[in-house]
Amino acid sequence: MTWLDFQNRFQTIRDNKVFELFVISVIIFSSLMIGIRTYELPGLAETILISLDYAVTLFFVIEIVIRMAAEDRFRDFFKKGWNIFDFVIVVVSLIPLDDSEYALVARMLRLFRVMRLISFIPELRVLVSALITAMPRMGYVALLMFIIFYIYAVIGNLLFSSINPQLWGDLGISLLTLFRVATFEDWTDVMYEAMTVYGLSWIYFISFIFFSAFVFLNMMIGIVVDVLDEEHKKMEAEKLGESVEEHQLFENRIENEVAELHRKLDLLLSQKQG
Amino acid sequence: MTWLDFQNRFQTIRDNKVFELFVISVIIFSSLMIGIRTYELPGLAETILISLDYAVTLFFVIEIVIRMAAEDRFRDFFKKGWNIFDFVIVVVSLIPLDDSEYALVARMLRLFRVMRLISFIPELRVLVSALITAMPRMGYVALLMFIIFYIYAVIGNLLFSSINPQLWGDLGISLLTLFRVATFEDWTDVMYEAMTVYGLSWIYFISFIFFSAFVFLNMMIGIVVDVLDEEHKKMEAEKLGESVEEHQLFENRIENEVAELHRKLDLLLSQKQG
Amino acid sequence: MTWLDFQNRFQTIRDNKVFELFVISVIIFSSLMIGIRTYELPGLAETILISLDYAVTLFFVIEIVIRMAAEDRFRDFFKKGWNIFDFVIVVVSLIPLDDSEYALVARMLRLFRVMRLISFIPELRVLVSALITAMPRMGYVALLMFIIFYIYAVIGNLLFSSINPQLWGDLGISLLTLFRVATFEDWTDVMYEAMTVYGLSWIYFISFIFFSAFVFLNMMIGIVVDVLDEEHKKMEAEKLGESVEEHQLFENRIENEVAELHRKLDLLLSQKQG
Amino acid sequence: MTWLDFQNRFQTIRDNKVFELFVISVIIFSSLMIGIRTYELPGLAETILISLDYAVTLFFVIEIVIRMAAEDRFRDFFKKGWNIFDFVIVVVSLIPLDDSEYALVARMLRLFRVMRLISFIPELRVLVSALITAMPRMGYVALLMFIIFYIYAVIGNLLFSSINPQLWGDLGISLLTLFRVATFEDWTDVMYEAMTVYGLSWIYFISFIFFSAFVFLNMMIGIVVDVLDEEHKKMEAEKLGESVEEHQLFENRIENEVAELHRKLDLLLSQKQG
Repeated sequence: MTWLDFQNRFQTIRDNKVFELFVISVIIFSSLMIGIRTYELPGLAETILISLDYAVTLFFVIEIVIRMAAEDRFRDFFKKGWNIFDFVIVVVSLIPLDDSEYALVARMLRLFRVMRLISFIPELRVLVSALITAMPRMGYVALLMFIIFYIYAVIGNLLFSSINPQLWGDLGISLLTLFRVATFEDWTDVMYEAMTVYGLSWIYFISFIFFSAFVFLNMMIGIVVDVLDEEHKKMEAEKLGESVEEHQLFENRIENEVAELHRKLDLLLSQKQG
Repeated sequence: MTWLDFQNRFQTIRDNKVFELFVISVIIFSSLMIGIRTYELPGLAETILISLDYAVTLFFVIEIVIRMAAEDRFRDFFKKGWNIFDFVIVVVSLIPLDDSEYALVARMLRLFRVMRLISFIPELRVLVSALITAMPRMGYVALLMFIIFYIYAVIGNLLFSSINPQLWGDLGISLLTLFRVATFEDWTDVMYEAMTVYGLSWIYFISFIFFSAFVFLNMMIGIVVDVLDEEHKKMEAEKLGESVEEHQLFENRIENEVAELHRKLDLLLSQKQG
Repeated sequence: MTWLDFQNRFQTIRDNKVFELFVISVIIFSSLMIGIRTYELPGLAETILISLDYAVTLFFVIEIVIRMAAEDRFRDFFKKGWNIFDFVIVVVSLIPLDDSEYALVARMLRLFRVMRLISFIPELRVLVSALITAMPRMGYVALLMFIIFYIYAVIGNLLFSSINPQLWGDLGISLLTLFRVATFEDWTDVMYEAMTVYGLSWIYFISFIFFSAFVFLNMMIGIVVDVLDEEHKKMEAEKLGESVEEHQLFENRIENEVAELHRKLDLLLSQKQG
Repeated sequence: MTWLDFQNRFQTIRDNKVFELFVISVIIFSSLMIGIRTYELPGLAETILISLDYAVTLFFVIEIVIRMAAEDRFRDFFKKGWNIFDFVIVVVSLIPLDDSEYALVARMLRLFRVMRLISFIPELRVLVSALITAMPRMGYVALLMFIIFYIYAVIGNLLFSSINPQLWGDLGISLLTLFRVATFEDWTDVMYEAMTVYGLSWIYFISFIFFSAFVFLNMMIGIVVDVLDEEHKKMEAEKLGESVEEHQLFENRIENEVAELHRKLDLLLSQKQG
């Protein structure tokens, strides 16, 4: 049996729908295992879960090796972003940390296996890609938002740090406090406290809420318009394409017919004069 | 009087507008009765309400029997989803639980009669159908949202369960706590508590809020775009239909006219040569 | 001087831009006066404000009498909704309640003069009209929302009234509590309290939040789609109108020309045969 | 070396990409410095930061002088809004307040340098311009919203000022309380307190929430529609332009051809009769 035979067999396995469903089941199963371990369990169950965890880790290694071997050239595997994503998750969960003091980290790393669901369900993959492409669009609005937050945070620190250092003690804390105000979470408590010293503090808070809400609103609208625009262009292109095509046929036909009329009339005229 | 006569009479009753309005009135009346019983009532009123409740139950049974009998074939009745909906609600309220320890359950079951309003008012029926058809659309985004919640819940449990087991004790409680954070309900209390032990906990909370808000936003936009797209396609189809139709008439007319011109010129030419 | 002369003079006053601006100024001034009286004032200022209030009341009576007299027929005045609106506000503020125990009511009634701003600024009038026409659109969704609230309120009352009668004591209080939950205002406090007795209460709250958010979302989307649709139809109609009109001209011209060609060819053929 | 040589050199500097990036870096650096000073620093670091601050101020003066000198005519510099914006920020930070009692004000004024980022990054400039042009659009809705707030504030003051003067003491405080209610921030506390005296106070609060939410919703929808409309008009204009242009060419061609047919037929007819 040659290497090519192996490769073909691996490709058959990889592209098999049943195998794919089985992998998804293992992913879900391993996610559930991680979830179950957050509950208090009897010793035995804990031991079983740990063994199962090893089994799952082994299975994932085998599965990714099969997918790698199925590629015609080894490096082709790493050309797809989602393959790298899968590979990193599998490799990372191999790091032997369980018995060390980093057991917590190890469990978290294994948690990221849940995300393999995304790389296995095409609809989720499309969704995540869409989210990622939407990000740069928001970039500059986020920057503008950050500038507003930054200015207000420094002013807040300068004015209110003596009133309540726990909320306005330094730039970082002030930014956190402003984020809290932007989510309307007990923002009046923050404001009333500030107003006990500076009676006009409400201007600071109300203007901040207006600015951040206004910019946020514009961001949302911007995205909606962007998305709709794209959809529109696609649709218009399709529609115009069709309608123009049909019309073009008519125009060509009528122009040919008229040219034919000319030819006949020219013949008549030449006969007359001939 | 034959069975067919009965059937016709039942159909007449069923399709009668006054009868329909009367049924709606009874539904509203029975809903109000359920509402009134939440208030403290003198013994007599209570007794009257219970008797009225029996009367309403009886009326609903009769009404549904009429609608069943009005069908040409008995099983046709169950072909419409809303009929099954009505049937289940009526049958369920017949279960004799009132005097047993399940009296509470009995009252709740009878409460679902309020929902018969939906099956009786066409506009509400359309609305609910629209809501149901919108659900699968949201399915995959909901799944993605759940994956985000799941990962954050396990991390939250691992990190914070020792700080506050009431909020992060196990996976279920953690999910609930995250849902609370996602609704901005006292989320800073949760965060500040976590920050007393892990100073960088704010990364966990802010990133979670960003992710969930971002995915939610995309879901909303996705739905808006979907809905608008459908509307658009309908409209464009109509518009194009009309405009193309009219145009087609002109094209046909002009092509016939030109063909006629050719016929005449051919005649002229043949005469010439003849 | 006849009645007609008076009427003309009144019309001149009513349609005068300066007069209109003066009325708006008086409305704003009277609104400010009402606002100022919410602050503690020295006795003299209070007395002046009360006198000014009488002056404003008098001015409004004169102004509305002028506008009535300016109409060709008296009843024409009441044909416009906004005139009735103005009339009611002015008449209502004439009721002599100031020194009685209903002084509070009197001040409130006079407060509604602020709303005359709406009837005087055309842009606000358009806006309010738009809001009113948008209301029926929301009617059925509001009804559906109410059915959801009603069912949940009764269930909440049945389950939780013994836990906290202040929140779930009867149908009315339960509805209020649910509205609070829908606005995310301290909803977890309500839920955690309920969960101390029924551990699965979170299903009640989470499902309620999902339902109400879902229906609300659909309402919003419905309105957006409705509004966009209308805008679209208007625009398309305009666009199509223009484009079709121009096209029609071309079609007519070309058909006339071709008919002329036929006429000439027929002449040629008849000459031939003649 | 003449003035013109200097001017040319200044223009070269101003339009140099590297110089621009350097200015942006200095802006970011100076913003960070302001942020760092909100943290407790050792004396030395503080001294260094103050010296750096002077350096930055000097650099900004030089930079703006270069940009002024680079203009062909001095006053051309002030024709661009963003130049005035930059100029004011630079001049204001020159006011020598550091050692006086207004040190706080001085630091705040220097904070506004952060905003120079906006005038240096074109994408942010576009964004801010868009936000500013969107403002008048919202004007009348904001006015309507204010009228609603005003009326409710006065009513709230009249009814509830005796219950809780801290929330309803005068018009200003009442407006602030209503803004709080509109953001759903502990609004039920405010309502429950009011309901202890006036049992029907919930009507006041619920109606206020409905009105303000309703008007806000309409504002949002209005803006979305406005923005989409503009986009649409642009797109339609483009599309129509193209399609009409192409069509026009066909129409002209066919009309010329038909005119030519007429000419030839006229010739035939004239020959016949001649």
